[in-house]
Amino acid sequence: MEYELAQLTAQIKPLDPQWTARAQERLDSLTKPPGSLGRLEELAAQYAAIREEIFPPLQIKRVVVFAADHGVVAEKVSAYPQEVTFQMVYNFVRGGAGINVLARHVGARVEVVDIGVNHDFEPDLNLISRKVAYGTRNMAKEPAMTREEALRAVWVGVERAQEALEEGVDVLAAGDMGIGNTTAAAALTAVFTGRPAGAAAGRGTGIDASTYNHKIAVINRALALNKPTADDPLGALAAVGGLEIAGITGLILGAAAARRPLVLDGFIATAGALVAARMAPAVTDYLIAAHRSAEPGHQLMLDHLGLKPLVSLQMRLGEGTGAALGISLLEAGWRIYREMATFEEAGVAGKE
Amino acid sequence: MEYELAQLTAQIKPLDPQWTARAQERLDSLTKPPGSLGRLEELAAQYAAIREEIFPPLQIKRVVVFAADHGVVAEKVSAYPQEVTFQMVYNFVRGGAGINVLARHVGARVEVVDIGVNHDFEPDLNLISRKVAYGTRNMAKEPAMTREEALRAVWVGVERAQEALEEGVDVLAAGDMGIGNTTAAAALTAVFTGRPAGAAAGRGTGIDASTYNHKIAVINRALALNKPTADDPLGALAAVGGLEIAGITGLILGAAAARRPLVLDGFIATAGALVAARMAPAVTDYLIAAHRSAEPGHQLMLDHLGLKPLVSLQMRLGEGTGAALGISLLEAGWRIYREMATFEEAGVAGKE
Repeated sequence: MEYELAQLTAQIKPLDPQWTARAQERLDSLTKPPGSLGRLEELAAQYAAIREEIFPPLQIKRVVVFAADHGVVAEKVSAYPQEVTFQMVYNFVRGGAGINVLARHVGARVEVVDIGVNHDFEPDLNLISRKVAYGTRNMAKEPAMTREEALRAVWVGVERAQEALEEGVDVLAAGDMGIGNTTAAAALTAVFTGRPAGAAAGRGTGIDASTYNHKIAVINRALALNKPTADDPLGALAAVGGLEIAGITGLILGAAAARRPLVLDGFIATAGALVAARMAPAVTDYLIAAHRSAEPGHQLMLDHLGLKPLVSLQMRLGEGTGAALGISLLEAGWRIYREMATFEEAGVAGKE
Repeated sequence: MEYELAQLTAQIKPLDPQWTARAQERLDSLTKPPGSLGRLEELAAQYAAIREEIFPPLQIKRVVVFAADHGVVAEKVSAYPQEVTFQMVYNFVRGGAGINVLARHVGARVEVVDIGVNHDFEPDLNLISRKVAYGTRNMAKEPAMTREEALRAVWVGVERAQEALEEGVDVLAAGDMGIGNTTAAAALTAVFTGRPAGAAAGRGTGIDASTYNHKIAVINRALALNKPTADDPLGALAAVGGLEIAGITGLILGAAAARRPLVLDGFIATAGALVAARMAPAVTDYLIAAHRSAEPGHQLMLDHLGLKPLVSLQMRLGEGTGAALGISLLEAGWRIYREMATFEEAGVAGKE
């Protein structure tokens, strides 16, 4: 399967600036001062260049939420007990969680993927069952996953993207659920940005100062034990990552390979992007950084990837909630591009 | 009419913190770490406190766009000719402008008010005709309006708010159209913040460096000639303001007096808020600063009013386009508040 992954990443090409320029020409013909819709215009041009069409549709939007557990919770790094992961999966399936509300608000569908939750769900649940394991192992004592598990989890994400595209999805967004996953995401941030664990880790769902110091020590122990390196992104993902993070990596790669934008959420989803960008650097052209999370390490990740977040609203929930807002802004930019009248159509005078 | 205005402003009371606290209690019972939806939660609590209801509706959204001309364009302070104002009014009415597109995107209706355009429109146009004058006079040579004209224009805005509320509008937003109006807004910024014209003025729709220096000189001439002071907000509005800015001031006062939120747009709309806040300081509790405009003086205004913009997307179009995005974020926060499951409903464990 490592061979198939290499084939997939080889398909991901940088955007062609000719498409961006053609889109900007259209944007400059619309009844507004050139550039006056700022980042909405950038989003529209990026979308046209990703799709390589002058007027591609933007109708069907999907948020894929990957849920998984983390062995590292045995080290007591989280404010919430592990069973919250599976309880929240039920909440997603019933439509009561934050991501359900915000996805409805922006007209997106939520797909929930059990990629590694420590719970047996009823088979009739409205859930995509792709469990690779009942959670990761404790990275402070051994690698979180085997290399083969990490690869299988990445491939689950690739297949979710491929299936979405077969179903006509225009825009994909990635979300996460997994108690303990800010510890894994912070460890990956340290690996890929080269910054210390203390800069990468934050308070997650809301731990106190002593738990926070303990969390940093746990990450340092995991890094010293497993010795992950950025040069082997799959190995690093296996060593200190998470199954849901691996799924997100795969979703990103699958979306970019099929020329669809991937709207990133916050700290966890962007950890998946760090891995994906190391496998296929051009993948960042297909990413839209929806927001800057209140989790401080998120800015390190975004800087490393060269991404500018669209909004900064002190959100730190995960699940894809920030990405949902990004979908709406992308669509706003796209509708401007498609629906606004040109100076000629409207009979409006240009600059003097 | 100054007496009625004083009566109206006297009705505007600060929000009752008990309502904010009640709303926060509900927010903290929802299946997410407390505060993890950041500013979306603040918006929801503000909305409940403005309405003084636990679950008020948020269905009907309206953007009121006030259009007017400016005598100061005789000084050649703008990159576009004056006829663009009326040409854009036709564009609004036909649905082809940026605000039409973004209002459709967020499910809001656009109401266009001719409060002072230098053009006679056909009577069958889908336009609210409340022309106070065919534009202001040239503030560099005489006061832009008489005190009575300014007051009439404010009252047009108050009545637009009152009529909207009779029609069941839950959320109001203010937009503008008027070639030359960044000059008026910058002059008002200088008056109300006490900062020099050079700090308050920007490049507007896109003037070059020499026109920019000329624009600052024109503002300074107008300030020296008319001697507006913040202690007489109506007088300052008359001296160096605009008819559309006066309409926005009235819309803000009318919305707050009737306990409805007013979503601000950028530089021009916030100039209207500077005047309103000087007439009734508590009005800022009812304002939502949707975005920070790329026009640099906007941040001075927001700081002066103590408002934090929701987003900063390098937009500088006006018309209410930034406010439209703010409406969508307010609604997102409100839907979170109303629709998310509580820990109890979802059977999810709380913090350990």
